[in-house]
Amino acid sequence: MSDQHSPEVMNSPTKKDGREAQPLAASQEAMVIFQPSGKRGKFAHGTPVLDAARSLGVYIESVCGGRGICGRCQVEVSEGSFAKDGITSSADHLSPFTEQEERYARLRPFKEERRLSCAAKIEGDLVVDVPQDVQINRQVVRKRAENLKIDADPATRLVSVMVEEPDMEKGESDASRLLVSLRAALASIEAESGEDYAHLTLDTALNSSLQRILREGKWQVTAAIYRDEGQMPKVIALWPGERRAAFGLAVDIGSTTIAAHLCDLRNGRAVSSSGTSNPQIRFGEDLMSRVSYVQMNPGKLPNLVTAVRDAVNSLIGKLAGDVGIASEDIVEAVFVANPVMHHLFLGIDPVELGGAPFALTLSDAQNIPGRDLGLSIHPAGRVYVLPCIAGHVGADAAAVALAEQPYQSDETELVIDVGTNAEILLGNKDRLLAASSPTGPAFEGAEISCGQRAAPGAIERVRIDRDTWEPRIKVIGVDHWSDEPEFAEQIDSVGVTGICGSGIVEVIAEMYLCGIISSEGVIRAEGAERSSRVESDGRTHQYRLWDGVVPLTVKQTDVRAIQLAKAALYAGAKLLMDKLDITQVDRIKLAGAFGSFIDPDYAMVLGLIPDCNLEAVSGVGNAAGTGARKALISRQARREIEGAVRAIEKVETAVEAKFQEHFVNAMAFPNKVDPYPLLRSQRDLPAFEAPTAEGSDRPRRRGGRRNRG
Amino acid sequence: MSDQHSPEVMNSPTKKDGREAQPLAASQEAMVIFQPSGKRGKFAHGTPVLDAARSLGVYIESVCGGRGICGRCQVEVSEGSFAKDGITSSADHLSPFTEQEERYARLRPFKEERRLSCAAKIEGDLVVDVPQDVQINRQVVRKRAENLKIDADPATRLVSVMVEEPDMEKGESDASRLLVSLRAALASIEAESGEDYAHLTLDTALNSSLQRILREGKWQVTAAIYRDEGQMPKVIALWPGERRAAFGLAVDIGSTTIAAHLCDLRNGRAVSSSGTSNPQIRFGEDLMSRVSYVQMNPGKLPNLVTAVRDAVNSLIGKLAGDVGIASEDIVEAVFVANPVMHHLFLGIDPVELGGAPFALTLSDAQNIPGRDLGLSIHPAGRVYVLPCIAGHVGADAAAVALAEQPYQSDETELVIDVGTNAEILLGNKDRLLAASSPTGPAFEGAEISCGQRAAPGAIERVRIDRDTWEPRIKVIGVDHWSDEPEFAEQIDSVGVTGICGSGIVEVIAEMYLCGIISSEGVIRAEGAERSSRVESDGRTHQYRLWDGVVPLTVKQTDVRAIQLAKAALYAGAKLLMDKLDITQVDRIKLAGAFGSFIDPDYAMVLGLIPDCNLEAVSGVGNAAGTGARKALISRQARREIEGAVRAIEKVETAVEAKFQEHFVNAMAFPNKVDPYPLLRSQRDLPAFEAPTAEGSDRPRRRGGRRNRG
Repeated sequence: MSDQHSPEVMNSPTKKDGREAQPLAASQEAMVIFQPSGKRGKFAHGTPVLDAARSLGVYIESVCGGRGICGRCQVEVSEGSFAKDGITSSADHLSPFTEQEERYARLRPFKEERRLSCAAKIEGDLVVDVPQDVQINRQVVRKRAENLKIDADPATRLVSVMVEEPDMEKGESDASRLLVSLRAALASIEAESGEDYAHLTLDTALNSSLQRILREGKWQVTAAIYRDEGQMPKVIALWPGERRAAFGLAVDIGSTTIAAHLCDLRNGRAVSSSGTSNPQIRFGEDLMSRVSYVQMNPGKLPNLVTAVRDAVNSLIGKLAGDVGIASEDIVEAVFVANPVMHHLFLGIDPVELGGAPFALTLSDAQNIPGRDLGLSIHPAGRVYVLPCIAGHVGADAAAVALAEQPYQSDETELVIDVGTNAEILLGNKDRLLAASSPTGPAFEGAEISCGQRAAPGAIERVRIDRDTWEPRIKVIGVDHWSDEPEFAEQIDSVGVTGICGSGIVEVIAEMYLCGIISSEGVIRAEGAERSSRVESDGRTHQYRLWDGVVPLTVKQTDVRAIQLAKAALYAGAKLLMDKLDITQVDRIKLAGAFGSFIDPDYAMVLGLIPDCNLEAVSGVGNAAGTGARKALISRQARREIEGAVRAIEKVETAVEAKFQEHFVNAMAFPNKVDPYPLLRSQRDLPAFEAPTAEGSDRPRRRGGRRNRG
Repeated sequence: MSDQHSPEVMNSPTKKDGREAQPLAASQEAMVIFQPSGKRGKFAHGTPVLDAARSLGVYIESVCGGRGICGRCQVEVSEGSFAKDGITSSADHLSPFTEQEERYARLRPFKEERRLSCAAKIEGDLVVDVPQDVQINRQVVRKRAENLKIDADPATRLVSVMVEEPDMEKGESDASRLLVSLRAALASIEAESGEDYAHLTLDTALNSSLQRILREGKWQVTAAIYRDEGQMPKVIALWPGERRAAFGLAVDIGSTTIAAHLCDLRNGRAVSSSGTSNPQIRFGEDLMSRVSYVQMNPGKLPNLVTAVRDAVNSLIGKLAGDVGIASEDIVEAVFVANPVMHHLFLGIDPVELGGAPFALTLSDAQNIPGRDLGLSIHPAGRVYVLPCIAGHVGADAAAVALAEQPYQSDETELVIDVGTNAEILLGNKDRLLAASSPTGPAFEGAEISCGQRAAPGAIERVRIDRDTWEPRIKVIGVDHWSDEPEFAEQIDSVGVTGICGSGIVEVIAEMYLCGIISSEGVIRAEGAERSSRVESDGRTHQYRLWDGVVPLTVKQTDVRAIQLAKAALYAGAKLLMDKLDITQVDRIKLAGAFGSFIDPDYAMVLGLIPDCNLEAVSGVGNAAGTGARKALISRQARREIEGAVRAIEKVETAVEAKFQEHFVNAMAFPNKVDPYPLLRSQRDLPAFEAPTAEGSDRPRRRGGRRNRG
């Protein structure tokens, strides 16, 4: 295999012969440069390329967690050796093709010049190219566009008019005659709406094309007229002849994923949707590491700003291309984002958001020209950014609020959007509270040993037989459960690559319901006596969920990660309930990719969410995207959310002592204090036994004694 | 001399040895590239570098007309020879140092690596650098800033406030708290003016600095708040601590010169003024050649736009540097320009202005962010552009109108601004007309054999003794007349380099008054018998005005050029008088550099302007600049001129048959029909004798028969 992929003569002075030499080689260091980022560092021989990339903050996707299964971590090695003796190149600065790579290549052949970065190890100086198709766009965007139920009232309106030809006697300019025609055409709208168009002007960006467009259209043109509160009415686009459709974008800039819908401005219908990874991942996997990055490298702020804007522009190009329109046909865009991404997108230093008092620089809704953000929509196109609610509760949460409108509800609603943080809204038409809980990314599949983001090949559903402890799984991309005959036929094209967020919640809930895990979250050692699926991994035990090419197991650390995440989520909700002085909510809405895909039953079994009538718990899909689309096609919706956000009471979990208390109490399964008297009456839940404060060795309902790791 | 300036070994295969070889060399061609423009062309050996530059549209200043006197045309030769044999360099691709250059160098030593491009001739391939100090900034800007008499009512107002510190409980963003403080501070202004600041927002450009400025000022900041009709109020600049002064720019973009005043926005006082050549001269000396250039090279429009904006930005840097402020401290700018420059500055194709119906693309006043024009003022700074009046009557004429306010006058005023074209306003508070007359650039010293622009060394005043025909001159830069003893002491430091516009008018008027020129404008051959100053130059005669290092003469062609220019000016005024049905005007105001410096007597003697009581004729200085400054510090002034321009009646001279008739009749001195019955009663003018239509040989008042050239 080595010869097949490194046919050249070995000429590196540092090269050791074959695998057995590795322990010796590992004591040496090699320089590795990653392209296109240009990041570089020295690494011990034997270091996997993927690990080197991660330690430098170079983003390479790996959904299978470096197990050589998903194939997402492919890289190209463009040259080796920077030795001063001038001897360059030779791919043998990389370890020979591994068994993992051979296995992967048998299932899904890949380009010969590529390697799996999780398998290939550094054995000499290297320049590693991270291909663009690996860097981005491999994400399955689960942020779909639902149907909108809202009256369209867009800020942009198309008006087609005939313009008088130039007349030397009158000497009126092209612009003046166009505006006269447009004002005449708008007279009926003025009369109807009371809107005054006397101050209608042309955006400067139209200066250079006005002359050509009027003549090209033989004096018939269609103008896009923009009018929103606090803005002077403006002609923001002009086309020769007659046009009927104008397009807008609704964009949700997440820490990990940027999702965009291209919409018809007349009705908000999404004509194309797409997503891309947020390239800022290069500067830090999570938000706080990006804030730290800016703090340590203040001069690099523009790089982060440019990275996210470039990614948005790529999406714009893709979406426009998908439906065969020009980017310039997009005349409006609405953006929602968490506070850090909101600031970075607008070019604002996010460092103040990294510590108390978590002061937002800008929170009000923004209504600005797209060109001020370097967006490649129409040069006079307009951008609306929803307001941020608080230092940790962003415009994305405002969009969720706009989509679900808890501020209009008679019932008390709990609306939760789980991303890397969970943003929580609680209240009704009288009073609405908002907070953010630091769940971390466990619910997104990160920090889980077999975790991955929701993508084809990820386990998303799990059932464990209560008696045999044998599992059944359902995988994204395959329509059938693993115990159905069709599963075997379909799984080969997808593979089983890892466990995504909803799968993790289900498997841990099932393990708990079966008694494999104690209510303190310990995988019981005694389970190994009952089923071979429970195995010792040394000091702790693990549950073998899938015996595939590479086995997928749930480890004790995975259970701990989910315990921390669910405790944070629960504590946040509970804190807001305290503030409202209630112990039960009328309705729970779970938004976002994770929220929409988890089974509410399991969410309750694990204690993610407070007690509620099960029928009143529902996933509401991509609410942030829905809110953004509402704002895109309705000025009324913009005013509604601007008013609602002003009225929302902000709660800062980071400084609430009560939050810490709730958090500690919520670590156990389901919880230290029974959270589900209502649910218990409806469902076959295990009888509630509060775990002891010390997690001591009192008897459990199922199985024997805990085995603490 | 040759060795001194070309010490290298002659190695060019095309090089001829010494001057005697020139006739042979002249049959060969050499490639010449001009830097920094990169323009290139092939030229016959022996071609002066200046001629080569001009034929390529590369602008090199030459105020003396290529006579080796002014020294403005210096260039550097960076390398020679592009021969394919690889032999490069050698400054001997240029003719040896000439006597003219030696003479100039004795008077004013110049850098050894430089040559006078009018004297140095091409003798091989060359790269010629046009130094920046030669390209621009050598112009004496006669557009000075006069005192303004106007109530300041600027669109930008400074407000200093204390901003609350961030409070986690309230969670208000920096921007929100700043706006709360500002709105509170503006409450009294709201009450007084009725202006509503509820929609006050921050300009996007402040996003990135807001956080830092608030903290740097320890929560005290000064905001520049912009508010103008048709605009939403906006915070456009922010500084830490307290500030009192804000600055604005008033800029007049002329075809040849860009003049700018940096003003204190509180009172319009010009704290610094400067000018620069319009670098678009590279694309065509006059407006119509620039229009043609764009027509022939549509893709090059951005080059012209960038050229003028870059020049404005250079001026901004210079003006700010002069008074020790940052460019970012400039928060507003007002621009005036003729229609072609107006369009080019705004990025609009001017081609439609090149032919009937002379359709302006944009005529209304513009109120736009400076960044949309790429201006290096404050990134959120604002630009106001005065309205254009008609296809040939620009925003510069509107500024003149604003400065002189003929639309408020009881008297009928004739306001004339002479640039390359003359823009003419005629009327009073009841009715105001505007037109443009194609005078050409003769009044600016162009197209005159010894002409130059107004700069030190230029003859600006002339008196000719009625008996001896001996002249006296006054030169810019010397305080005394040439017959005063101090003149000889001072002239050496300045030199006598040419004749500027006012000088040309005076010398020709004096020649006419002495009888050296006939009323048809012929320099009489008989004059040679009376004075040695009248000389034959072959077919025609000339008048030797100055016997300096190089003699300055007034040639027959110069008289013809002035005849054409003055006839156009007079005909334009007369046409407007016809439209108003008047034969005399109450008041004449002469604006601009030429208008301010010519003696009204001489203007009338030559028939530039219609009959008027002499006391009612006055130069009004740089009225366009004054109008721009008024608009800079007064919103009221902006509304006033916007309204006035709408009411002005536009007259297009190019299509009026009557204009042609007036033009033909006005060619003679003073005119075919006596234009000055009123003036004649006040002054010792020659008795009026209408020239015959054919200019035939009937007897003249002074001297003998005409000698037609």
